[in-house]
Amino acid sequence: MKLLEERIRRDGKIGKGNVLKVDSFLNHQMDVPFLCELGKEFYRLFKDEGITKVLTIEASGIGIAALTAQYFGVPVLFAKKTPTNNISGDVYRAEVYSYTHERTYTIYVAKDFLLPGDKVLIVDDFLAKGSALFALLELVYCAGASVAGAGIAIEKAYQEGGSKVRAAGIRVESLARIASMDEAGGVQFVDEE
Amino acid sequence: MKLLEERIRRDGKIGKGNVLKVDSFLNHQMDVPFLCELGKEFYRLFKDEGITKVLTIEASGIGIAALTAQYFGVPVLFAKKTPTNNISGDVYRAEVYSYTHERTYTIYVAKDFLLPGDKVLIVDDFLAKGSALFALLELVYCAGASVAGAGIAIEKAYQEGGSKVRAAGIRVESLARIASMDEAGGVQFVDEE
Repeated sequence: MKLLEERIRRDGKIGKGNVLKVDSFLNHQMDVPFLCELGKEFYRLFKDEGITKVLTIEASGIGIAALTAQYFGVPVLFAKKTPTNNISGDVYRAEVYSYTHERTYTIYVAKDFLLPGDKVLIVDDFLAKGSALFALLELVYCAGASVAGAGIAIEKAYQEGGSKVRAAGIRVESLARIASMDEAGGVQFVDEE
Repeated sequence: MKLLEERIRRDGKIGKGNVLKVDSFLNHQMDVPFLCELGKEFYRLFKDEGITKVLTIEASGIGIAALTAQYFGVPVLFAKKTPTNNISGDVYRAEVYSYTHERTYTIYVAKDFLLPGDKVLIVDDFLAKGSALFALLELVYCAGASVAGAGIAIEKAYQEGGSKVRAAGIRVESLARIASMDEAGGVQFVDEE
């Protein structure tokens, strides 16, 4: 999606350790009118899939998931990273290894809100090594629900997450796929190679 | 707002310790079309205030903040609860005491995204003792920005947060104000007293 590629090139910053910072528009400050355009694109891509629920993970996935879900007219369920008394009843659990924070954590969703009849679209801001996405898929399978696919804003296509998830038969639609990046040369996208 | 009061009465659950669980539509599963109606109401209430930014706190405020901000056509900035390398540069900090988790934590926003010229609408899902809201106000004042007010979905009006913030001269618009609640009698709202 050219709109997102241009925005990454304009406002993304490549920090130490080759971390792409998009905190000015995606995951700290959120440019909401812009994210609505990404949501419309996810709707265009998945509108014929009979989506009943959008699933994401706190915190930075929630904004784009909510703005996307409104075009489908369906609820968002966000997996929580800490057990909380805000969730009532039984939960499904899955483990995520965070390469950013170098630790494993558990994510939770209440069983009441993920049902065998659900057709789930997973939405998240980033896909890199795929740990969070595989954990979200696990939650869906635990519930006996089905997955229509994953709508990802930014895929780091030089990491293995996207190809692993696609190899598992899951449709992954990433609006920007980064082929490579470095502080000197900036960002190259897959479709520009 | 009758729409929200009716929804709380229908789907809210009062758990042990008089915790109101609204995880079926507000802060775990989010009924996005419904939250859009809350967002439109915040827009109606604050549309003449020259809002330039919506400020909230992760994680459960993000969805309603994003859906609200789209009617204003402005960005959302969400305060983070953990320092992260997703945020570049200097930050403003404030302390929040969580009565739910019985501990104090620090919230952060990047200085780059909260500016002296900003007119801020704070949006959050709950207002009870006011600790999170005062911390968000502190971030705004640290930045030299101004506050148009706070748009709250559910205020526990029997706790002191709302009256303390209003006494400080801040406009607080809560879409449902709970006067009292208990497992036997259910929920009573302020305008029903």
